[in-house]
Amino acid sequence: MPEYPTAPSYPTALGASSRHEITLLGRSLADDVMGEVGFGELAFWLATQRRPTKGEARVFEAVLAALADHGFTPTAIVTRLTYLSAPDSIQGALAAGLLGGGSRFLGVTEDCGRFLHEALAGKQPDESWDDFARTVVAEQREARRFIPGLGHHVHKDGDPRTPRLFAIAREEDLFGPHLNLFAAIGRVHPEILGKTLPLNGAGVCGAALADLGLPLELLRGFALLARTAGLIGQLAEEIRNPVANDIFLSVDLNNRSVAPEPYGGQNG
Amino acid sequence: MPEYPTAPSYPTALGASSRHEITLLGRSLADDVMGEVGFGELAFWLATQRRPTKGEARVFEAVLAALADHGFTPTAIVTRLTYLSAPDSIQGALAAGLLGGGSRFLGVTEDCGRFLHEALAGKQPDESWDDFARTVVAEQREARRFIPGLGHHVHKDGDPRTPRLFAIAREEDLFGPHLNLFAAIGRVHPEILGKTLPLNGAGVCGAALADLGLPLELLRGFALLARTAGLIGQLAEEIRNPVANDIFLSVDLNNRSVAPEPYGGQNG
Amino acid sequence: MPEYPTAPSYPTALGASSRHEITLLGRSLADDVMGEVGFGELAFWLATQRRPTKGEARVFEAVLAALADHGFTPTAIVTRLTYLSAPDSIQGALAAGLLGGGSRFLGVTEDCGRFLHEALAGKQPDESWDDFARTVVAEQREARRFIPGLGHHVHKDGDPRTPRLFAIAREEDLFGPHLNLFAAIGRVHPEILGKTLPLNGAGVCGAALADLGLPLELLRGFALLARTAGLIGQLAEEIRNPVANDIFLSVDLNNRSVAPEPYGGQNG
Amino acid sequence: MPEYPTAPSYPTALGASSRHEITLLGRSLADDVMGEVGFGELAFWLATQRRPTKGEARVFEAVLAALADHGFTPTAIVTRLTYLSAPDSIQGALAAGLLGGGSRFLGVTEDCGRFLHEALAGKQPDESWDDFARTVVAEQREARRFIPGLGHHVHKDGDPRTPRLFAIAREEDLFGPHLNLFAAIGRVHPEILGKTLPLNGAGVCGAALADLGLPLELLRGFALLARTAGLIGQLAEEIRNPVANDIFLSVDLNNRSVAPEPYGGQNG
Repeated sequence: MPEYPTAPSYPTALGASSRHEITLLGRSLADDVMGEVGFGELAFWLATQRRPTKGEARVFEAVLAALADHGFTPTAIVTRLTYLSAPDSIQGALAAGLLGGGSRFLGVTEDCGRFLHEALAGKQPDESWDDFARTVVAEQREARRFIPGLGHHVHKDGDPRTPRLFAIAREEDLFGPHLNLFAAIGRVHPEILGKTLPLNGAGVCGAALADLGLPLELLRGFALLARTAGLIGQLAEEIRNPVANDIFLSVDLNNRSVAPEPYGGQNG
Repeated sequence: MPEYPTAPSYPTALGASSRHEITLLGRSLADDVMGEVGFGELAFWLATQRRPTKGEARVFEAVLAALADHGFTPTAIVTRLTYLSAPDSIQGALAAGLLGGGSRFLGVTEDCGRFLHEALAGKQPDESWDDFARTVVAEQREARRFIPGLGHHVHKDGDPRTPRLFAIAREEDLFGPHLNLFAAIGRVHPEILGKTLPLNGAGVCGAALADLGLPLELLRGFALLARTAGLIGQLAEEIRNPVANDIFLSVDLNNRSVAPEPYGGQNG
Repeated sequence: MPEYPTAPSYPTALGASSRHEITLLGRSLADDVMGEVGFGELAFWLATQRRPTKGEARVFEAVLAALADHGFTPTAIVTRLTYLSAPDSIQGALAAGLLGGGSRFLGVTEDCGRFLHEALAGKQPDESWDDFARTVVAEQREARRFIPGLGHHVHKDGDPRTPRLFAIAREEDLFGPHLNLFAAIGRVHPEILGKTLPLNGAGVCGAALADLGLPLELLRGFALLARTAGLIGQLAEEIRNPVANDIFLSVDLNNRSVAPEPYGGQNG
Repeated sequence: MPEYPTAPSYPTALGASSRHEITLLGRSLADDVMGEVGFGELAFWLATQRRPTKGEARVFEAVLAALADHGFTPTAIVTRLTYLSAPDSIQGALAAGLLGGGSRFLGVTEDCGRFLHEALAGKQPDESWDDFARTVVAEQREARRFIPGLGHHVHKDGDPRTPRLFAIAREEDLFGPHLNLFAAIGRVHPEILGKTLPLNGAGVCGAALADLGLPLELLRGFALLARTAGLIGQLAEEIRNPVANDIFLSVDLNNRSVAPEPYGGQNG
């Protein structure tokens, strides 16, 4: 195995420091960032290496608020149970909760953003948004695929986050093609699918993030950032009014021992 | 094992939803939170169940900015390497990075907040802050214990974040006992320790968070929240300008095979 | 929201305990498992709820040995760096390492097992294995898809684990259709692809695990189990002869500050 | 910042590979390890860099069996809930479960091993084990500290794993000072504490691992290795007979919305 030829170097535009200075994204951390930049704004800046406008930051923070906490989700329960087991490691409790941020419970935001982006393929439709949406919905139906962001198991008559995020994006003049297409899908899908489904909050967040020009690979990352704040809230509440042990016992005391069901081998 | 007597119930003041409404902390998520509350403000609110004042939110967000990213820290390298190995799981890359947020690299914030809090034991000193700090430093020296937040391996002449956070806290009238004691330690320690050390940024953040009345058990949690935004920045950069494979190779190609050193047994 | 109607019950055939007894898989843990069952055998039993034969356990443990440790892989580096940052949390260091066990570095075992399984679709071919493999390789080539388990960036002339696992499986009379197809792919692919690639160790492990009748959804899980033992070895070595700080510094000291590259917005 | 002077090198006795060979711990992986070494034996070897005797491997594997799975523990529930949320990431589900392996539910093994080791301080007592144990128990009582490994919330009349592991260690002539002291504590504590508590299974495992000469810093690591096999069993069962959604719903549907309780600020 040959020696590595020369010392490699690792470029970064993020944090850097010398004896007297700390910079972040090319700015003085102390003078230009601390006290000057909100946390949502900073997260946007770190992810895109460009500082968002005031309107972009407001839409972005509205999305983070929409996704921060939904009560006793699996991720919240996981964080509480992990804290119960390992109270010495706050980082472990948060990390465990975030690991539930996968395809099923937190993935809709990313899936919806990607879906709209691919449908748009970088261009505005010539026709009206409603006509364009009709084609998109019909194609999905033909391929027997769900439309990400459509439907909700609780908010069957409409998810209150959706009209609110539409309104905020309009106020900030950031209602772009992804939100336009998403809204149009909401209007036209009943005539094609034969039933009326709500546009859900996770989906509208994906549409809004895509309209902000954020990297699609990271849409799930923003949902996870929002959720980190929520999980800290869950931990704070668990510390003051613990329920994790009750949750654990409600499962453990209701276990029912059954005979093994061999898998594979001669029967497999 | 007896059946669990009655269905348990799990109280929470965080997220709740019904068919037509979603609430967070007792407020309408759509109407009162989205578009109205910044993300730092929301994180504070979730952790304390009280909405911070504008000044509290500014100090809190200055702390988050100070802790968000420090370039190629172990946590940043870990997130990049995990993404290299498992690009299908953004949540895994973020969680892996956060798991480095333990005692050594991210713990100073919590340690410093706790140290100051215990020294203060809930009261203001009768004497001057400098006299009080002299006693505190002398006691630590006697017990041969370090003072958390004192010293920095790079910023030997002073960490630029420290005077800046002092200034912001003063501007917002939030320079409380923890910051007062920390600043006094910075003034008086040379006469007791015989050398001048900088008050570091992680430490001053702990002092400021403690003055905001945030739960001490969660100070590390806020450092992790800040770091989540930083790690998303690291991931975004890794996706566009990858370096993780070079880091991996720089280690793997420079491995040196050595003979096993048996541990334990007859030699242990 | 209606009350949950009756206390739910949660069936399991795994661990159960009463005041005087602990059972695992329907057997007395103390009398029938401890001291009687090897750890590889137990892991197989837990995953399938059937006790493997001696030959099955030997093949399974040979696979675990093949996958346990490959030196300074990203997962090993991640575990060492996380321990450097958070030495108080062994569980965090191990978990962080396992999170790299995704599609790229540890996924070949699962991908290869699934690929062979789908190609076989539950039946033995009528024709010879070589003819069957020719069809399979040609179809992949046509679809411009790689064959999982074929090729290795270091062991270009052959991965020593492959013939060894073939031999062990034959000795134990467990050389089933997945291994037969995999071996045949190794023989016939040069005539179709026009170049000779080695059958790699991760791939042959997937074939062997599939022939053992283990659930395909969990093939990655077994690779992770093997890797857990390897990561404990990495941690043990790191504790005695630390290199993580050198790795960290080799990156941090070679960082190169570059200007931000704005993403999205007007340029996006 | 100076350039890193010369390319660093990273020594390791674990995995290494060249074009034609793969070694592990200085042996040929294919010829000397695969098919020759059981998985428990290999884990021991990786952690200590010495190959255990047959007796050492048997005691070690008995410990792993004792700790592998205890039914619906918090770690098992966490793994199942994480799989429910993110079924695309087996590694995330396992890692999340392991993160619960902290001080409370999985730490007794490590705590007990360390406690006995410190009490012994490397020497055999001059007096009888019972007299020595009397001093140890009395000192703990005086300091108002619990004795790790003593007591169990279910197996109040005795944990069946304890006598079994004692017997196995005696059969293999590996009943060393840690087990001797632990057993003596079991005999003498009633006369000092005024009540009879069982020696629990997690504790006896710590004593046995310490007698095997394994590094104390890693005792929790072995508990985690055992648990990894258990969690794979939990995942396998969850895939075939899912209960995680029922667990989630049993919590979510029984949530009870309460008013926020402000923390800190004027009231803090």
